Amino acid sequence: MHECLNKCDELIVVIGSAEESHTMKNPFTAGERFQMILSCLTPEERLRVIIVPIRDVNRYSVWVNHLESYLPPFDIVFSNSNLTRSLFKQAGYEVRRTRAYNPKEYSATEVRKRMISGKKWAHLVPGPVAGMLEAIDARQRLLDSGERPSTR
Amino acid sequence: MHECLNKCDELIVVIGSAEESHTMKNPFTAGERFQMILSCLTPEERLRVIIVPIRDVNRYSVWVNHLESYLPPFDIVFSNSNLTRSLFKQAGYEVRRTRAYNPKEYSATEVRKRMISGKKWAHLVPGPVAGMLEAIDARQRLLDSGERPSTR
Amino acid sequence: MHECLNKCDELIVVIGSAEESHTMKNPFTAGERFQMILSCLTPEERLRVIIVPIRDVNRYSVWVNHLESYLPPFDIVFSNSNLTRSLFKQAGYEVRRTRAYNPKEYSATEVRKRMISGKKWAHLVPGPVAGMLEAIDARQRLLDSGERPSTR
Amino acid sequence: MHECLNKCDELIVVIGSAEESHTMKNPFTAGERFQMILSCLTPEERLRVIIVPIRDVNRYSVWVNHLESYLPPFDIVFSNSNLTRSLFKQAGYEVRRTRAYNPKEYSATEVRKRMISGKKWAHLVPGPVAGMLEAIDARQRLLDSGERPSTR
Amino acid sequence: MHECLNKCDELIVVIGSAEESHTMKNPFTAGERFQMILSCLTPEERLRVIIVPIRDVNRYSVWVNHLESYLPPFDIVFSNSNLTRSLFKQAGYEVRRTRAYNPKEYSATEVRKRMISGKKWAHLVPGPVAGMLEAIDARQRLLDSGERPSTR
Amino acid sequence: MHECLNKCDELIVVIGSAEESHTMKNPFTAGERFQMILSCLTPEERLRVIIVPIRDVNRYSVWVNHLESYLPPFDIVFSNSNLTRSLFKQAGYEVRRTRAYNPKEYSATEVRKRMISGKKWAHLVPGPVAGMLEAIDARQRLLDSGERPSTR
Repeated sequence: MHECLNKCDELIVVIGSAEESHTMKNPFTAGERFQMILSCLTPEERLRVIIVPIRDVNRYSVWVNHLESYLPPFDIVFSNSNLTRSLFKQAGYEVRRTRAYNPKEYSATEVRKRMISGKKWAHLVPGPVAGMLEAIDARQRLLDSGERPSTR
Repeated sequence: MHECLNKCDELIVVIGSAEESHTMKNPFTAGERFQMILSCLTPEERLRVIIVPIRDVNRYSVWVNHLESYLPPFDIVFSNSNLTRSLFKQAGYEVRRTRAYNPKEYSATEVRKRMISGKKWAHLVPGPVAGMLEAIDARQRLLDSGERPSTR
Repeated sequence: MHECLNKCDELIVVIGSAEESHTMKNPFTAGERFQMILSCLTPEERLRVIIVPIRDVNRYSVWVNHLESYLPPFDIVFSNSNLTRSLFKQAGYEVRRTRAYNPKEYSATEVRKRMISGKKWAHLVPGPVAGMLEAIDARQRLLDSGERPSTR
Repeated sequence: MHECLNKCDELIVVIGSAEESHTMKNPFTAGERFQMILSCLTPEERLRVIIVPIRDVNRYSVWVNHLESYLPPFDIVFSNSNLTRSLFKQAGYEVRRTRAYNPKEYSATEVRKRMISGKKWAHLVPGPVAGMLEAIDARQRLLDSGERPSTR
Repeated sequence: MHECLNKCDELIVVIGSAEESHTMKNPFTAGERFQMILSCLTPEERLRVIIVPIRDVNRYSVWVNHLESYLPPFDIVFSNSNLTRSLFKQAGYEVRRTRAYNPKEYSATEVRKRMISGKKWAHLVPGPVAGMLEAIDARQRLLDSGERPSTR
Repeated sequence: MHECLNKCDELIVVIGSAEESHTMKNPFTAGERFQMILSCLTPEERLRVIIVPIRDVNRYSVWVNHLESYLPPFDIVFSNSNLTRSLFKQAGYEVRRTRAYNPKEYSATEVRKRMISGKKWAHLVPGPVAGMLEAIDARQRLLDSGERPSTR
């Protein structure tokens, strides 16, 4: 996010799969993810960032229209997904990759794995996020997370 | 179910994934599952049991509200799913595990496996259910069950 | 319901529009409606009645399959809706009207109108239902009921 | 349709609200409407016409993408709806009105009204369609049509 | 909004019916509405306001859970809808009305009516919004708005 | 398709999973698949073939009603899926398998695998389809295809 902020005046951060939570892939609600992102912004940055939670539609063919309808106008799309870049490029947008962090360490997957196995993870996320994750007992949430709601 | 019935006056049995059928995980329609449960109840038990088929919403964040809206009021939630217990506990309900049966034998998975491979399975389910499974040719249903509807 | 119970051994009562509540047409959740129906049954009747909440699918063309998948097998369909009778008849079911009560008085619409305008209504519903309606402050629910959820 | 066929080489006819049937506005299933359109085509015309049933998405903001994903490529959009023309024009398509027939007589609304009240209607629709409407007892279908599925 | 901002430190503004646009009731996309709200905020206000577009679920019984899952934690709910206040109050939130503006003039309905009939409306909305409405030709959008997508 | 055309007068070809595209399993939109099928038909065949794109409903229990509502009347169902044949047989239709092509070579899976790994594939599909696949750069589409839309 901070890398993208350096490359533009205003940045829209999309919270994807906004309706999902309590799963291994998306343990947190869109609201919780919203709060985590906010906590990493300085006041100066907050004036230049717009955060928008958006549910998946699971139809790639309307994905561009779906995003356009939820977002203020934008010109450039930052994404490391080939498909996303391809769909937006075809719709006339400028598209860019973001520089890949060290994927071994700074990935959400790595943080989840460490949490579950009880290893250190707090140094891999921004300070305010680490505090928030402790407060909502993220480790327990991960251990409980499931495939889909069930009464069994 | 009978274990839970011993621990409360009235029991609501939720038939989950009610819209699913003809899959490996849920070979039977909610209506067929309803009938199987009914067939295991004595008249005395039937007066204390409420059976409610409920479709999945696939959004854990509204799962508690979803169930509350379909069910008469309840106080205790019996479930062996960590997530279900965790969501209802957070919403203020008392939650309990049920004693685990011998999972090697008395699980639905085991019954399905035996049916498919042609081994004996009838002794693992209540008598009336075994009859019903024969009547609807459950073995063939399992062999035909798929991932999703298709015309191929 | 009691009229139908006299005409068959076992009766399935479908709670339609099960996902709707807090509207003028369906002020109560499926769970609350479930409870109201239960409260009107004697133990002898309860052994012969199955109550099933079913959400609308808003596609008449799959309506019969939708109901069949949620319900134990049935032979006769009681309904005062021409369309429902017509769809089930075409699918091979026996269909019947129920005798019309005095529609001026014993209709849900009349009860709602009286509640809202503050007139007497309790004598128009079974005793246990009247008590339940008082307990959940049904009049206030009606006054608050809306077209669709809104934050305005 | 025949007017449009004169203005282009190939014509795609979209059957809208394809999931709706048995309502006053759309008494017939998409399949029945498909058959009626087919019955009006000469072999020569059939080679130039593509018929595609498409369900409503009820989100105007993805309407163009939705149609594009179901249809072979097209250049011109014929429609008498201001909104449809406006949405496709904004997406870069050429849009055109169709000449209005005598709306008093040749409208679907007029045919429905006449059917219901028992007046002559067959002269207002193409011959093969009239036969098909008789065969499926369209008048009864209209009399039975409802707002939404119900068991009342 | 400014009235609410005076009564709390941080304000979450929910854009309801976020998936709707091009209708008489919601002529603009969530993205356009987002932009209009942003344009009315001073930098100082923007640091205290969170804007979140949320689609309708059309099930009042899960409305509270639905909003909670999209939003950072909140304590007070401002709404002039009786139902919204009632649902959140029951879930334990503090609820408040907002002072009613002169409903004859400052309502969205009045602005729409004036736009359509060609009367002056710009003085009824904040300056930046008026400019934006001109830019996207809001009057034409209103004239084109429909009930649901159609190819007719 | 041509095998089935030899066995009946009129053939309805169903394009399944019509709302899916840009995935490994269904890289092409329903519209693109429609076009490919059309391109393989002689004029004589086109007069006997009806092509209908149909979205999945993911509920096997309404699958038959769903298809019936989209299609003109039909008598025989050709399918190599056990479940599809079983569901339609139970609903009273005649069902048939199609002769299996050499599954090693003439399967869609094989064509996709060859495209991705850069091997020859054009000889495995009809000539006009090969041209179309080149024109829309099918290889790149496959390389980009994903599990679900994402902004990452």
